[in-house]
Amino acid sequence: MLYSTDNTVLFLPGPVAMHPRVYEAMNRPIYGHRTDHFRKLYAETVEMIKPVFGTGEADAYILTGSGTLGLEAGIINFIEPGDAVISMSAGKFGERSSQIARLYAKEVIEVKSPYGSPLLPEQLEEAFEKTSASLVTITHNETSTGVLNPLEDIVKIAHKHGAMVMADTITSAGGDWVKMDEWDVDIAVSGSQKCFGIPPGLAFVMASKKAVDRMMSIQRPPSYYADLVRFKNSVEKGSGTPFTPAITLVYGLHESLKLVHEEGLENRINRHRLMGKVIREAALAMGLTLFAKEGYYSNTVTAINIPEGIEWKDLNKTLQKLGVIVAGGQGSMKGKIFRVGHMNIFGPREALLAVSSVETALKKLGYDTNAQGTKRAQEILAETL
Amino acid sequence: MLYSTDNTVLFLPGPVAMHPRVYEAMNRPIYGHRTDHFRKLYAETVEMIKPVFGTGEADAYILTGSGTLGLEAGIINFIEPGDAVISMSAGKFGERSSQIARLYAKEVIEVKSPYGSPLLPEQLEEAFEKTSASLVTITHNETSTGVLNPLEDIVKIAHKHGAMVMADTITSAGGDWVKMDEWDVDIAVSGSQKCFGIPPGLAFVMASKKAVDRMMSIQRPPSYYADLVRFKNSVEKGSGTPFTPAITLVYGLHESLKLVHEEGLENRINRHRLMGKVIREAALAMGLTLFAKEGYYSNTVTAINIPEGIEWKDLNKTLQKLGVIVAGGQGSMKGKIFRVGHMNIFGPREALLAVSSVETALKKLGYDTNAQGTKRAQEILAETL
Repeated sequence: MLYSTDNTVLFLPGPVAMHPRVYEAMNRPIYGHRTDHFRKLYAETVEMIKPVFGTGEADAYILTGSGTLGLEAGIINFIEPGDAVISMSAGKFGERSSQIARLYAKEVIEVKSPYGSPLLPEQLEEAFEKTSASLVTITHNETSTGVLNPLEDIVKIAHKHGAMVMADTITSAGGDWVKMDEWDVDIAVSGSQKCFGIPPGLAFVMASKKAVDRMMSIQRPPSYYADLVRFKNSVEKGSGTPFTPAITLVYGLHESLKLVHEEGLENRINRHRLMGKVIREAALAMGLTLFAKEGYYSNTVTAINIPEGIEWKDLNKTLQKLGVIVAGGQGSMKGKIFRVGHMNIFGPREALLAVSSVETALKKLGYDTNAQGTKRAQEILAETL
Repeated sequence: MLYSTDNTVLFLPGPVAMHPRVYEAMNRPIYGHRTDHFRKLYAETVEMIKPVFGTGEADAYILTGSGTLGLEAGIINFIEPGDAVISMSAGKFGERSSQIARLYAKEVIEVKSPYGSPLLPEQLEEAFEKTSASLVTITHNETSTGVLNPLEDIVKIAHKHGAMVMADTITSAGGDWVKMDEWDVDIAVSGSQKCFGIPPGLAFVMASKKAVDRMMSIQRPPSYYADLVRFKNSVEKGSGTPFTPAITLVYGLHESLKLVHEEGLENRINRHRLMGKVIREAALAMGLTLFAKEGYYSNTVTAINIPEGIEWKDLNKTLQKLGVIVAGGQGSMKGKIFRVGHMNIFGPREALLAVSSVETALKKLGYDTNAQGTKRAQEILAETL
């Protein structure tokens, strides 16, 4: 078969297609991790990752695990059992942070928006009227809905009330601006298989000086593997990571971050923003509608409402016949939306293919767009050449 | 330079050299993990890993993380806050389980042997005279000392006193016998970069039916990422792993387990045992002495005392000039021993090279073995051809 699971193009919001140089790096012979060689590579990786989060002074912890491990470490190391947490969520991933906080905090106050809508500073202000909290958790870019939340404004309200902010930047960092220092974000968490462009298996926890100070002064959480003080001490005394890291993935990350800086972070983010625009405008030109509220569009994943009369499972199957994979909706959004990830090395070429494939599949299923989506994508992209 | 960190042969007790087919598998295009394709691959991996632990009915949890995450999950899911734990340790890795247990259990009773000595059933019997405990933790194969502990006998004593056993089989499973069903082991934990022959980044927790029953009936630990009930529910309802797994490493594991079963588990273990014998007898023929107590030799890692007048850092540097890497001692064993890992695809060819390299380096440093180690290795190996 020409197209199969071994010959496919992923337009998922993670995992994503990877640059050939990342494959090469991950194929380098494995070397021991308790060596100067690896410690140097790790230290370089830490220095290269910081600017991606817009920080020069935050601590960077590169953990071996899924993004969820990063969220757990990003929450439990910065609160004490008696603390209250305000958890802002409007999608599947925001809800995960809330579930984690509930295991540790005395109280978790939920601030919710409908799926597809943003989380707004006035909602947080209102929550603080009823309660006090030491930490606010929020998803910067909600992968399940394609919404980008106004993180900078959220931080301002939280800080006014003396709370820190843990931002889930799993699908924003590396593809959109995350300006930890400028926006004064306390904790940012991300993962390897999204805009960082390597396979899943690494999680990143970034902690500002203020966050680290609090971490060092409060009671340790009842966790061994996710205890960032243990991690910090191990690295600072020169032993490297406290536990055996996923060496090949660190090789891949090191190379991928080199690619980020070779392209230039600003160029990279402008590219992601342009790709977001192309996918959105093409969808609208096809007569489709977007799931996210206007003004809060994600630049790394676009959620598109499935037109009436078309079933997700048919759309998915038809796209797979073209060797192309997009994502469906999760939870209550299942069957209602499909999601196109435009992350990492997704550029004009990938945008053309994504749009044209979706149009072809829709046509096959009886929804004829007359190639208007592709026409619009071509117009925008031709301008940039 | 001919030999560098990019052209090296690893004789470490993890990470280890990998089979070319494992590299190939990890280079397969990444596919989404929320698909039938990946769920099938994961299910096959689970079925292939069970016999490596000598079990048909235990649950297998393949977690994304270091081996230490596996140890943490293997402890915290099976005890309640009011429980006491007996922690048996005679090396760096035994001590880690004790540190983890201390975060959760009401009390941790330490049973210790000197480094290089085994942990014996009578020591456990004695501990039970002074206390009761619901869980005993023990390292089956202590990587830091090259000692194989008598797990089967330990389990008998623990069960007599109503306690379960969590065995750290990180450097035994896949290279030596771990017979969960026959020995009635409750929980066994391992990691990917040892005898399983893939890069670090996956941890395995095996839980017998009895262990799972207890897990399902007791209070959940205050952990999200390491909560095995969440993991079990997610897999059993057909969603796959609860969090994004390290997909490329699962591809590698799937292929590596195919290699295990193609060779045959018994053949594989006999090979590891033979390699252990070759390395030990060669070391003795060189006039060196072994760190582990006779009768308790590990078959996957051999710890050798560094002869007087030789410095570890010189031995290490000289071996590196040959493009060969062995491990030093950890903690208080630093400078006193060196360790040769003989795991995964380490066979007669690798044994010849390891022995000959060590002899050449020792000769350079003024300790002339007259190739007696290599001679002994050749004698043993020629017999097997």
